[in-house]
Amino acid sequence: MALTPAFLASLREALGEAHVLADGDLTAYEHDWRKRWRGRAAAVVRPASTAEVAQVVRLCRQQGVSIVPQGGNTGLVGGGVPDTTGTQVLLSLQRLRSIRQLDAQNLTLTAEAGCVLQHVQQAAADAGLLFPLSLAAEGSCTLGGNLATNAGGTQVLRFGNARDLCLGLEVVTAQGEVWNGLSGLRKDNTGYDLRNLFIGSEGTLGIITAATMKLFPQPAATQTALAACTTLDDAVALLGLAQRRLGAGLTGFEAMNRFSLDLVARHFAQLPQPLPDAPWTVLLELSDTEGDAAARLRLEQTLEDALGHGCVHDAVVAESLAQSQALWHVRESIPLAQAEEGLNIKHDISVPVSAIPAFVQQTDALLQQHLPGLRLVNFGHLGDGNLHYNVQAPAGEDPAHFLQAHEPLVNRIVYEQVMANGGSISAEHGVGQLKRHALQQHKSPVALQLMRSIKQALDPDGLMNPGRVL
Amino acid sequence: MALTPAFLASLREALGEAHVLADGDLTAYEHDWRKRWRGRAAAVVRPASTAEVAQVVRLCRQQGVSIVPQGGNTGLVGGGVPDTTGTQVLLSLQRLRSIRQLDAQNLTLTAEAGCVLQHVQQAAADAGLLFPLSLAAEGSCTLGGNLATNAGGTQVLRFGNARDLCLGLEVVTAQGEVWNGLSGLRKDNTGYDLRNLFIGSEGTLGIITAATMKLFPQPAATQTALAACTTLDDAVALLGLAQRRLGAGLTGFEAMNRFSLDLVARHFAQLPQPLPDAPWTVLLELSDTEGDAAARLRLEQTLEDALGHGCVHDAVVAESLAQSQALWHVRESIPLAQAEEGLNIKHDISVPVSAIPAFVQQTDALLQQHLPGLRLVNFGHLGDGNLHYNVQAPAGEDPAHFLQAHEPLVNRIVYEQVMANGGSISAEHGVGQLKRHALQQHKSPVALQLMRSIKQALDPDGLMNPGRVL
Repeated sequence: MALTPAFLASLREALGEAHVLADGDLTAYEHDWRKRWRGRAAAVVRPASTAEVAQVVRLCRQQGVSIVPQGGNTGLVGGGVPDTTGTQVLLSLQRLRSIRQLDAQNLTLTAEAGCVLQHVQQAAADAGLLFPLSLAAEGSCTLGGNLATNAGGTQVLRFGNARDLCLGLEVVTAQGEVWNGLSGLRKDNTGYDLRNLFIGSEGTLGIITAATMKLFPQPAATQTALAACTTLDDAVALLGLAQRRLGAGLTGFEAMNRFSLDLVARHFAQLPQPLPDAPWTVLLELSDTEGDAAARLRLEQTLEDALGHGCVHDAVVAESLAQSQALWHVRESIPLAQAEEGLNIKHDISVPVSAIPAFVQQTDALLQQHLPGLRLVNFGHLGDGNLHYNVQAPAGEDPAHFLQAHEPLVNRIVYEQVMANGGSISAEHGVGQLKRHALQQHKSPVALQLMRSIKQALDPDGLMNPGRVL
Repeated sequence: MALTPAFLASLREALGEAHVLADGDLTAYEHDWRKRWRGRAAAVVRPASTAEVAQVVRLCRQQGVSIVPQGGNTGLVGGGVPDTTGTQVLLSLQRLRSIRQLDAQNLTLTAEAGCVLQHVQQAAADAGLLFPLSLAAEGSCTLGGNLATNAGGTQVLRFGNARDLCLGLEVVTAQGEVWNGLSGLRKDNTGYDLRNLFIGSEGTLGIITAATMKLFPQPAATQTALAACTTLDDAVALLGLAQRRLGAGLTGFEAMNRFSLDLVARHFAQLPQPLPDAPWTVLLELSDTEGDAAARLRLEQTLEDALGHGCVHDAVVAESLAQSQALWHVRESIPLAQAEEGLNIKHDISVPVSAIPAFVQQTDALLQQHLPGLRLVNFGHLGDGNLHYNVQAPAGEDPAHFLQAHEPLVNRIVYEQVMANGGSISAEHGVGQLKRHALQQHKSPVALQLMRSIKQALDPDGLMNPGRVL
């Protein structure tokens, strides 16, 4: 079903000719950036304001046309591209890009959904403040998308995920009404937590159009170090030790297995290759309110303590900001190195921190038993219990063939072990289309029924991003 | 409608004779501790397990009997006592009091709803860890009640409210099913945020039976100081300065106006009376990972900086743990001193921190204009924008008569100013019965409609704590 000419005309009247695209090449909106999902939209609409978003929703509702909201189109689970039927309206938030307010005394910033994350970070920095949400796609992902998917990233250990950074939302409901919940309040116990219901709902309950986010004072100094650990048990022991000694100053704790760093060395030989023999390398970041000398001393004392304890056998502290950035760059190059090595099976899982060593040992063993020689690119936000536990084909084997033959088996083994350890099959990427079926298998039936009841209550016609999450 | 004998028998069969109370003096369950609400229950049931809670809900559902869940019965808004019809079943959670698990590596604790907050704090302390939720009623309030009302307290500035401390819930739904969402995960993006929907819903969507809560390393040292500020503007400037210098180490920031401390001096003459001329006194608490000497130095430097800046004109740092506790004791004695002075009109409001000085100035002036001579006991968690902005009758006037004559006018003036400043009429106490009508007046109609839709979806028969919140 294509859209009727009358309906297209009503959209054009609402938004202006230039912002209702129904012809020409729309693949920038219809395909996700990894080219994993290639949908087809009935039209792409680009409203410029909350009122225009509401009008589009009301028009679509009258016609029974479903809507797929899209931010920066950087998602990893196919949540923001239309399906292949050519019947859905793709609603891009990219023209809602004002930073409406920055309140330095209240440590808050109110920005529209289409603001690029990096611009939000910059606006905070320009006021001498910190907006800590940080992830690989920050140059193109949008605040609305970050909230719709409850994005994580590298600073969750200290500052929480997108949900934890949000104090208020503005949302266009499935009825096309505007809920103005843009509060800059730290405390508000006047009824149900609508904010957190919309956050992480991936556009299936309504469309986030703006948000009020927490800001923080900028740290006086930041120091980075790498530590070599023999086992994951040692890395978990180091985490506990660093949390005790550094408290909230510990703003980063990333673990990387040997193979993930070997891949970086192989494909990006120009990058530093510190601690080349460590089975596990941990990147620690300390943010401090005093200054560089005090921060460096604190980090060195923590590492000395860890060396004495035996959970670390070697360590390096970055000597300069440039060195610190280089160490982070190594960490952030793992996904790229992995892509250079060939197709692979990605997992974004979490388990309690205490369960990580056993989970990895058991799952490694089971996978090797079924598929001898496969290679594990295992790295991630150990401080949050979140690993990107990715599976690469055995050396010399065709990756595409390996994926085609074994992806279901690999996923089954990994997800069963995740569930057996009380974990989550999607820690920070969301569900989208990719994990919709896995969710039905692995989520509690009571939770799924509660979710369906809520979806039915808020979007009875099922027009908001259908086929995602549920 | 009294309960039928057959129904009572079925409850007794499920829970045992001793735990279904239908006769005798039940006022300990039926009246709130302040004797503001005096209800009457058809029966008081005391299940001992999640399965028994679920069974009670299913039995009540079959008979169309409504349920009022109750924890420690320390609430301030009448959310946990039955209405006066004598038709409701009061479900006490007090026998669900196991601490099911403490995972020191994962920094989590799983406890049942009826656990007294102080016992949870103690269990954490016994493991060398900190559970930071802290409030005046901690000796008798329960974890389930803390979560049902999203309790706040004095540590919100650093650690957030009950919601922010919770990683997972176990809930008995209105259908009498058990949702086991007891996750110890920092990151889990598998669908809608059911946890936060139940938190703060005051028992109107389901019954929280257990929760997994975050723990933290204990600080190495804690230091407390009082600072004298001439104006609230100065106090807000001090907050910003302390946040910049102390970062997450700033774990307390309480402001008290002159009259609130004068009342403490009048009614509790044995307590210390520091900074007796300060128009505003601020209590600052620093928690530190290094030690007492370092913490003291940091706090003193912060205060010196503030003296130099001019936002503080005098300050004292506690010399010992005993002195520190005495300073906190002064702060915590304000509500008691107020009660000694006579009945008063309490408000638990929040506005953005940046709006606090203007809000207080405007509201003080409007109240004095309408009711000359009234006295303002104004104190609270300034760091969270949360004030207990309480109104006491003019000196010499009969408090009861003043309340009867002027409470609606006072509330209207205060709440209108709160709304005009983008604030909340219930920052940390919840809605319950007390603010149900005020909520209808002051909450956005779109938000109220969303809340009603959710209530209808999860509790279609309206049996879960009816007449509260909505």
